[in-house]
Amino acid sequence: MTLGEFSVIARFFSRPVSPGILGVGDDAARLSLPPDTDLVSCKDLLIEGRHFFSDVAPATLGHKALAVNLSDLAAMGAKPLACLLGIGLTAPCPDWLGDFADGFYRLADQWQCPLIGGDTISSDFGTVISVTALGTLPKGELGLRRDRGQIDDDLWLSGDLGGADVALRALQGDDKISPELLAATRERLERPEPRVALGQALLPLAHAAIDVSDGLAQDLQHLLKASHCGAEIQWQQLPLHPMLQTLPENIKRLAVLNGGDAYELCFTAPKRSRTDIEQLAIALSIPLSRVGSLTQAPGLRLHHGNGLVESLSAQGFDHFKRGEQHG
Amino acid sequence: MTLGEFSVIARFFSRPVSPGILGVGDDAARLSLPPDTDLVSCKDLLIEGRHFFSDVAPATLGHKALAVNLSDLAAMGAKPLACLLGIGLTAPCPDWLGDFADGFYRLADQWQCPLIGGDTISSDFGTVISVTALGTLPKGELGLRRDRGQIDDDLWLSGDLGGADVALRALQGDDKISPELLAATRERLERPEPRVALGQALLPLAHAAIDVSDGLAQDLQHLLKASHCGAEIQWQQLPLHPMLQTLPENIKRLAVLNGGDAYELCFTAPKRSRTDIEQLAIALSIPLSRVGSLTQAPGLRLHHGNGLVESLSAQGFDHFKRGEQHG
Repeated sequence: MTLGEFSVIARFFSRPVSPGILGVGDDAARLSLPPDTDLVSCKDLLIEGRHFFSDVAPATLGHKALAVNLSDLAAMGAKPLACLLGIGLTAPCPDWLGDFADGFYRLADQWQCPLIGGDTISSDFGTVISVTALGTLPKGELGLRRDRGQIDDDLWLSGDLGGADVALRALQGDDKISPELLAATRERLERPEPRVALGQALLPLAHAAIDVSDGLAQDLQHLLKASHCGAEIQWQQLPLHPMLQTLPENIKRLAVLNGGDAYELCFTAPKRSRTDIEQLAIALSIPLSRVGSLTQAPGLRLHHGNGLVESLSAQGFDHFKRGEQHG
Repeated sequence: MTLGEFSVIARFFSRPVSPGILGVGDDAARLSLPPDTDLVSCKDLLIEGRHFFSDVAPATLGHKALAVNLSDLAAMGAKPLACLLGIGLTAPCPDWLGDFADGFYRLADQWQCPLIGGDTISSDFGTVISVTALGTLPKGELGLRRDRGQIDDDLWLSGDLGGADVALRALQGDDKISPELLAATRERLERPEPRVALGQALLPLAHAAIDVSDGLAQDLQHLLKASHCGAEIQWQQLPLHPMLQTLPENIKRLAVLNGGDAYELCFTAPKRSRTDIEQLAIALSIPLSRVGSLTQAPGLRLHHGNGLVESLSAQGFDHFKRGEQHG
C-alpha cells in the first residue's frame, strides 16, 4: 500500500495539541513561550544503517529519535516545550508508521513535548529522521553549559554506562556477548531514557553538564576544554552497567569509556551540593555516581584502584572517523 | 582529506553570533525571543537525488536549504530569528563544505537569521540536509494562516511561476527546453528568493497565505480546504515566467499549475487592500499579481480567456507519489 505525503501526515502525525498552539498543518507552527523564559533548541539527525538497524522495531526508533534530542535539552537543564519531526521514507508502510508514531508520541506525551510540525518526504536510499527539540530555561538562569565547570567541582554521572555499547556489539555480531547479555542491555541502546527531570532539578545544584552520546572520554573532554580545566576520574567509581562485570577488561573498558549512545548526564557540581544531589538521586530514582573531580591541570586522568594513573585521550565516536555502525 | 565531525563544525559552521545568543558548541542553543512575540518554527528535509542533483553547486545548495525554510516562515508572515542545520555527508570535502557554508550563511546574514546549532553526521548513501528555521510573530497578530481565507478575498501571487519547473525538466534531460531557456530559469530552481520581507509586510493587509512549493494547484487547494472555500483563477492573470511564453501550451500549463519549487507566496486579501498591495509591490520591487478570488463554491476553477472554465484537481508534487526527481 502506498500512502501519499499528506495522508501520512494526516493519519500518523497530526494528533491534537493544546489550544493556543498552531501545530501540524500550516507552513510553520506557532506557540507562545512561558513568561520569563528563553528558548533552547537542538536537533539530531538519525540515518538508517548508521544510527539504527534497518530492522529496528519502529516504536523503538520513534522513541529513540526523540529521546536523543530530549537528552540534549536535559544536558542544558531545559524544560521541553515542543518538537518537530522530519522523516524521509522509501516506502511508507502504515503498520510501521503507526508503531513509529506511537513510540514517538508516547515519549513526547511523557515530557509534555507536543509534536507541532515537520516535513515528510520520500527518500531513495533508506529512512532518515531529523528531530528538532525546543525547550525553555528561566531567564536569568545560566543553565548547565559546558563551559561552566569549575576547578574542584565534583564530577558526577547519572545511570550506568556501557550497556548500549555492549548491545550494539552483540547486534553487530560480536560473539563474545551472550544472548542473555544482549537481552539485558538492549533497552539501553534502543530505548534510552532522557534525563529530563534530572537536568531541570540540577539547575540550582550543578555547574556544567553534557550528555554522554559519543562516549564518556570524548564527551567529558568537550566539557573540560570548554571549561578550561582537566579532570581526575576513578575507574572504580564509574557506574558500569551491572550485567557487564563479568566481561573481559578490555571490552568493559571500551564500553564504559568510549561506548556511545548512553544518554546519561555527566555533570559537575560544587562540593556543597553533594547532599542535595544524593537526595535528588533518591527522589528521582536515578543512580547518581560521584566519579571524580575537575582539576586545574588540563587533560583527563583515569585512576585505577591499584595506584596506576592513566592519561586518556578522546577516543569516542566521531561521526566521520569510525567506519562501523553506530546503533 | 578526511575531516572529523568536530573539525567540520569548528571550521565551517561556527561563525560568531550576537552576544546574548548561545550558539553552536553546547548540547543545545539558547536565545531570547524579542518581547511580546510568539515563536514560529518549521523544518524541511532535503535529500540528494530527490531534492537536489549530486553535482549541484554547493553554495547554491546551501542557499536553497535555508531558502525553502525561510519561505515557510514568510508564508506565516513571521520574522526570521535563527536556524539550525543538520547535515549528513558521505565524505566531507573542505572545498565543498566551505562553499556550502558560504551559500548558507550569505542568506542567513541577509535575513539576520543566525545559525545557532545543529548536527553533523556521516551518511552512507548521500547528502542529507535538514534545516529548522525559527521565527517570531507579534503576540496578538494572527499571522498569515492557511485557514484565514475569506469568501470574496482577492487571490494574489508574488513573482512568477514555471521557471523552476522548466529548469528542472531541462536538467532531467528534456530536450524541448533549450539551453538558453535553462540558463534563463535555472536561478529560479537553484536560488529561490524567500519572500521574507513581503510576508511580514502583508500581515496588516492579507488574510491567508501559503508558499508555492509543491505546485500552485496543489498548494492553493490546501489553503482552500483549510479556509472552507473555493476559488476562481484567471489563466491570463497567472504570472508566467517571461521566458516561458513561447513554450508549447501543455508544458507551460504544467509548469505554472503543477510545477514545484517556486517558493512564491500565494495569498488572499480583502478588496480594500488592493491599493496598498500594489504599492507594496513597488516598494519591495516584487511583482504581485491579482489572479482570482475566493468563492463560497468549493473547488478550484481555472478561467481561460476564451470563456472555457476548467475544474482543477490537485496534481502538484506529492513526495511519495511522483517517481521523478524534484529539484
